Amino acid sequence: MKKAPALAVTEWLNSEQSLSLVDLRGRVVLIEAFQMLCPGCVSHGLPQAMRVHQTFKHDDVQVIGLHTVFEHCEAQGTNAALKAFLHEYKISFPVAIDAPSAAGGIPKTMAAYQMQGTPTLILIDCNGYLRKQKFGMEQDLTLGAEIMALMRETDVFTDSPAEKKHTKKLGECDKHGCSL
Amino acid sequence: MKKAPALAVTEWLNSEQSLSLVDLRGRVVLIEAFQMLCPGCVSHGLPQAMRVHQTFKHDDVQVIGLHTVFEHCEAQGTNAALKAFLHEYKISFPVAIDAPSAAGGIPKTMAAYQMQGTPTLILIDCNGYLRKQKFGMEQDLTLGAEIMALMRETDVFTDSPAEKKHTKKLGECDKHGCSL
Amino acid sequence: MKKAPALAVTEWLNSEQSLSLVDLRGRVVLIEAFQMLCPGCVSHGLPQAMRVHQTFKHDDVQVIGLHTVFEHCEAQGTNAALKAFLHEYKISFPVAIDAPSAAGGIPKTMAAYQMQGTPTLILIDCNGYLRKQKFGMEQDLTLGAEIMALMRETDVFTDSPAEKKHTKKLGECDKHGCSL
Amino acid sequence: MKKAPALAVTEWLNSEQSLSLVDLRGRVVLIEAFQMLCPGCVSHGLPQAMRVHQTFKHDDVQVIGLHTVFEHCEAQGTNAALKAFLHEYKISFPVAIDAPSAAGGIPKTMAAYQMQGTPTLILIDCNGYLRKQKFGMEQDLTLGAEIMALMRETDVFTDSPAEKKHTKKLGECDKHGCSL
Repeated sequence: MKKAPALAVTEWLNSEQSLSLVDLRGRVVLIEAFQMLCPGCVSHGLPQAMRVHQTFKHDDVQVIGLHTVFEHCEAQGTNAALKAFLHEYKISFPVAIDAPSAAGGIPKTMAAYQMQGTPTLILIDCNGYLRKQKFGMEQDLTLGAEIMALMRETDVFTDSPAEKKHTKKLGECDKHGCSL
Repeated sequence: MKKAPALAVTEWLNSEQSLSLVDLRGRVVLIEAFQMLCPGCVSHGLPQAMRVHQTFKHDDVQVIGLHTVFEHCEAQGTNAALKAFLHEYKISFPVAIDAPSAAGGIPKTMAAYQMQGTPTLILIDCNGYLRKQKFGMEQDLTLGAEIMALMRETDVFTDSPAEKKHTKKLGECDKHGCSL
Repeated sequence: MKKAPALAVTEWLNSEQSLSLVDLRGRVVLIEAFQMLCPGCVSHGLPQAMRVHQTFKHDDVQVIGLHTVFEHCEAQGTNAALKAFLHEYKISFPVAIDAPSAAGGIPKTMAAYQMQGTPTLILIDCNGYLRKQKFGMEQDLTLGAEIMALMRETDVFTDSPAEKKHTKKLGECDKHGCSL
Repeated sequence: MKKAPALAVTEWLNSEQSLSLVDLRGRVVLIEAFQMLCPGCVSHGLPQAMRVHQTFKHDDVQVIGLHTVFEHCEAQGTNAALKAFLHEYKISFPVAIDAPSAAGGIPKTMAAYQMQGTPTLILIDCNGYLRKQKFGMEQDLTLGAEIMALMRETDVFTDSPAEKKHTKKLGECDKHGCSL
C-alpha cells in the first residue's frame, strides 16, 4: 500500500474551503475523476458518486469530484463551464479543478495518480492510503462493500503503541457507526 | 397548420453546407432543439434523435440538431465547446447554432418557434408545415408512427392540377419508399 | 405477400369473445407470441405490446397475445397459471392460448407461422396479409413506423372500381385517422 | 436483536442438501423471499440476489431464495413450475420452498418472519441474528455496505474466553477476507 498523492488543485467548487487528504484522515475518501464532456462520467461515474454522497454520512465518507481536463481544453477548461455543468446536473459534493501541468500535458493530480483516463474511481482509506483505483465502471454492490470494508478497518497495520499514537486519527475511523 | 419558421443560424456543424427548410421540401424534418448542458437533452432527446437518424433514410427524414443557448451562455456559447460535445457524444447529424438575438434574449429560431425550453422536438412535413412541437420527452413508439404518418401523406391538400404543379416538390414525399 | 394463417386457439383470455383474423380485416393486427416463463417476453416483448395497446386506437390496431407453450408444458400449460401471470403483469389485451398439436410438438398456430421461438412479433395488414414476423427484439421507433405505414396503406393493389367494391373492408383501413 | 427464525422448507432446489440457518453460522445469510409471478421479484429482487451471489465468496455470504407462495397457489404452487422458472431465469443459488401452513394461510417461514409480501430481503449475521428485513426494493450501494458491515463484525458480543469457545463458529466470520 502506498499513500495517496496529495491533490493539486487550482480551485474548489461546492466547498467554502480547500480540502486536503491529510485533513480528511479518519474518513474514507472517494475521488471521482471526471471531465464534463466525458459521456461515461455523465451517465455512470458522477451519478454513482452522487449516490455514495447521499447514502453515507459525510463524516464517514467524503466524496470529491476531480475535474481532470486532458482534452477539449478550450471547451472544458473554464470554471464558468464547469459551474454551469455542476448546477445543471445537480452535483453537490465538493469538486476540485485539477491543476494544469506546466508542460501542458495532463493535469498534475491526474499525473501523480497515473490515471488512464476518465472516469476514474479512487478510494482512500482512513489513514490516507490509496486502496482502489479503477478506470471505467464499477458496480454499486461492490463499491458499497468496499467502502464499508474501509470504514470498518481497525488499526491492524499499527503494531506498536508508539505508532498508534503517531496515527491518532486512525481510531476515528471506527468511531463512527455505520451510516446505513 | 402554419408554415415552419425559417431557421436563423450562425454556423452549421456536421454539415458541409447550410441547410434550409425550403430546400428540404419533400422530406420530413425532425428538429431537436437542445443545449449541451441540458441533462434531459443528453440523456433522452439527443439519443432519440440519433435513433431517428440511424433508422430512417436521410432522403426521407432529415434530422437537425438546433443548439439554442439561452442560459449559461459563457459556458455553452463557444463553437469549440459544442464541437467537443458533438465529438464525445458521437452525434453525427447536422447541427445548427441558433443565431443570438440582437436584444440578448433567447436566440432567434427559438423565439420564432416560441419554444418553452430544451429539449424541444419539432416535426415539419414534406411541404414545410409545422406539424408537431413538443417540449420534453416523447416516446419512441409515438414518434416512429408520427414520422411515418408524415412520410405517407399524399397531396390531399392540393385539389387542383394547377396547384399540384406549383407545389412540385410535394410529390417527392411519396416517391421514397419506407426506409424500414 | 401471403395471407396470415388463421389462429388455432383453445381459449381466449381478456376477451369476452373469440377473435378471428378475418373479422379483424380493416385493422392492423399485432400478434405477440410469448411464453409466460420466457425472460425476453417478460422484460421486452410484452411491455412493448402493452405500449402499442396503449398508444394506438383499438379500432386501428388490434394487439393480441398468443401463448405458444412449447417447453415447460406442465409449468406453463395451465390456464390458471396464465391467468395469474396476466393479472400480475397487468396485461390487458386479448390473449389467445395456442392450440396444442395432436402429435405433441409445438402448438398449431406457432407451427402454421413457422415461428422459431418466443418472443415473436407479427404484423398483419388491414387486408390480412402477413407483413412482418420477427423473432427477438424490435426497437420501438421502427415498430411505430411500421404500424403507421400499414395504417396508411391505400388500396394500391386494387386498380378497378369493381375490385374496389369487392374488397370493401380494405378501404376501412384508411377511414380511421391517426390515433396519435 | 433477535435470532432469525428457522426456515420451514418442504424442498430445496439448486442444492443437493438441505440448508439450515444453524449450519450457516459464520456466514452472512441473505434470504430473498419471492414468488415466481411477482413482477418486482423478477425485475428487481432476484437479479439483485444473483448479483450478490456472483459478487461475494459463498463462504462469506450465502444467498438463499425462499419461494413464499401466498397467492395464485395453483399456478405457482408446483415444483415443476418453479424449476422451469429458475431454469429460464438462470437463478443458480439454492431455493427453498416455504412450507404451506396447516391452516391454508401464508406459508410457515413467511409467517414466522411476519413478512408483508414479496419481494422481501433479509440479512442474517454470522451469529444467526436477524439484522435486516425489508419489503420492497433496496439499492445495491446500501446492500453492499450492509453485507460488508456484517462480514466485518468482530465478536464484540462475546466478552469472555469461555463464551468465545462456546460460540466457536462466531470467529469464522472474521476468518474470511473480503472477497472483493
